[in-house]
Amino acid sequence: MSENHMIETDVVIVGAGPCGLFAVFELGLNDMKCHVVDILDKVGGQCAELYPEKPIYDIPALPVVSGQELTDRLMQQIEPFKPVFHLNQMVESLTKLDDGRWKMMTDAGTNLVAKVVVIAAGGGSFVPKKPPIKGIDAYEGASVFYSVRRMETFRDRTIVIAGGGDSALDWTLNLAPLAKKLTLVHRRDEFRAAPHSVAAMRELVAAGKVDLRIAQIAGLEGEGGQLSGIQLKDDKGETSVVQCDALLPFYGLTMKLGPVAQFGLNLHENLIPVDTEKFETSEPGVFAIGDINSYPGKLKLILSGFHEAALMAQQAFRIVHPDRKLRFQYTTSSSDLQQKLGVAA
Amino acid sequence: MSENHMIETDVVIVGAGPCGLFAVFELGLNDMKCHVVDILDKVGGQCAELYPEKPIYDIPALPVVSGQELTDRLMQQIEPFKPVFHLNQMVESLTKLDDGRWKMMTDAGTNLVAKVVVIAAGGGSFVPKKPPIKGIDAYEGASVFYSVRRMETFRDRTIVIAGGGDSALDWTLNLAPLAKKLTLVHRRDEFRAAPHSVAAMRELVAAGKVDLRIAQIAGLEGEGGQLSGIQLKDDKGETSVVQCDALLPFYGLTMKLGPVAQFGLNLHENLIPVDTEKFETSEPGVFAIGDINSYPGKLKLILSGFHEAALMAQQAFRIVHPDRKLRFQYTTSSSDLQQKLGVAA
Repeated sequence: MSENHMIETDVVIVGAGPCGLFAVFELGLNDMKCHVVDILDKVGGQCAELYPEKPIYDIPALPVVSGQELTDRLMQQIEPFKPVFHLNQMVESLTKLDDGRWKMMTDAGTNLVAKVVVIAAGGGSFVPKKPPIKGIDAYEGASVFYSVRRMETFRDRTIVIAGGGDSALDWTLNLAPLAKKLTLVHRRDEFRAAPHSVAAMRELVAAGKVDLRIAQIAGLEGEGGQLSGIQLKDDKGETSVVQCDALLPFYGLTMKLGPVAQFGLNLHENLIPVDTEKFETSEPGVFAIGDINSYPGKLKLILSGFHEAALMAQQAFRIVHPDRKLRFQYTTSSSDLQQKLGVAA
Repeated sequence: MSENHMIETDVVIVGAGPCGLFAVFELGLNDMKCHVVDILDKVGGQCAELYPEKPIYDIPALPVVSGQELTDRLMQQIEPFKPVFHLNQMVESLTKLDDGRWKMMTDAGTNLVAKVVVIAAGGGSFVPKKPPIKGIDAYEGASVFYSVRRMETFRDRTIVIAGGGDSALDWTLNLAPLAKKLTLVHRRDEFRAAPHSVAAMRELVAAGKVDLRIAQIAGLEGEGGQLSGIQLKDDKGETSVVQCDALLPFYGLTMKLGPVAQFGLNLHENLIPVDTEKFETSEPGVFAIGDINSYPGKLKLILSGFHEAALMAQQAFRIVHPDRKLRFQYTTSSSDLQQKLGVAA
């Protein structure tokens, strides 16, 4: 929450995936400057996060391209427009100002004001999967944590880590030396993590430095947000309680719409309905492109988000530059556009 | 008009420009075989014909690509689907058969029957610009010609060639030796043609083998389709008549919708209105994608035609394979699609 001064720009784009990046290009061609916010610590969205090395075959004129290469190519293409990225932060609020502009605040304290907002948030934000435990909400942030921001927070605490993947195993190995006591809970005695992590965990268990319990979490004990114990149930149906003052469930990541759901955009099944002329939402000046929008015929293709970005940019121009006439030009023949791209003869 | 047997296929695409080519890809992914008809003698449409070497900057993830390279990349991408091309021919008719399929005939006698027709004809067909001379229609094909199919047709004839570009000059040089007499008419004594052609023409004029007249064509004389003379008017307003029995105007090429206009598709300003869900025309089973269609927000971008091809292919599948269930899959994760693309592990 350090930086709180207000940044004014033409357009704020939520999401730095392929569609958000290409939106910078289409908006830039039409003389609009962009700031881009993303929850991940890098650009590229799902493409860079989930499948950087996996080939994609259906981007037109790129018979095969990896998620990372697609991202790199788009970054090269938008370079002339010098977008400003605010990474590793989540949009927390979007409000309309009296002058018709939009104000956006992120959880890192970034404060953006723009005439146009483009939501290109894909499937939403990557968020931890929550375990289906009754009443867990009451403990979140106080004694239940889905990520480790600072390891020191957990020094000398009695910790339960739940899960069987890499995150659960990695944090078991990293926190065991600091913790007063650490219990790893997994529903079966098999782990989806890297073999060397599993081996290292088993050594700690054998040495009595980690307690491994094969069971499911059946309930939580505690009050006022402070855990005192975890109720476990094993596969024979027997129950027990593990005393603890912190629970770290690592059940993987899922996509959630997140705060976008609170933007007042008339959501339908977690998607944002838009028209097919301008890809504008129910709020004038707020557009939605890419996987997050919906309209008759919608396909969740990167290609479709690119097209949507192009049509969106026409209407964005009318909002950002109401005094100017919109001219449709081709990059092949317009020396004006070539100037902007830095390729004029 | 040699070949007249009927070719049956899933989809016929009119136009082998970028959108027509990418339609082969999207249809191929959904198990539809395509035949593609184009009036040009090569694939690539305007991109390959008008600007093969000019850079295009707004194809997503291709920061710069020439028209020819774009064409080559698309041809590589659709190679797994083995489209059949019928080049150098123009669609002459499209009629609906009793069984609901469409029958298409070209001026080369190709006879295609398909459940789905995709019109991806761009700005239309390249056709010669007609000189604005009253009554010229009556002579076309009989003694006025916009192209030279067989040079022998013009042996021993008294010819007027009109125009100042490469085609006018090239045909002046080629036909002068065959013609009984050849007159070149151009409105001013400057030529937009290659300098060596202009020089060669001037030599023929100096040698008395070509007559050069700086004037405009004011009218035609003749009857029953047979020209007898051309009325000229020079820049002083003086008129004269050149006797001839053939006129070859070379005033450049323009784009015309051509026979598509006769397909009964509810044209509006020479564009084909479509919905934005399936990009289907007023005729079920006939789709229009790319520059030739129109809908609210339409931009004549190659990118938009690509998107339209993807959505069109979903509806085309329902028509071609009514008995099968359409599954939306990603090339990144579907081994089924990867098999079709020939890249399965």
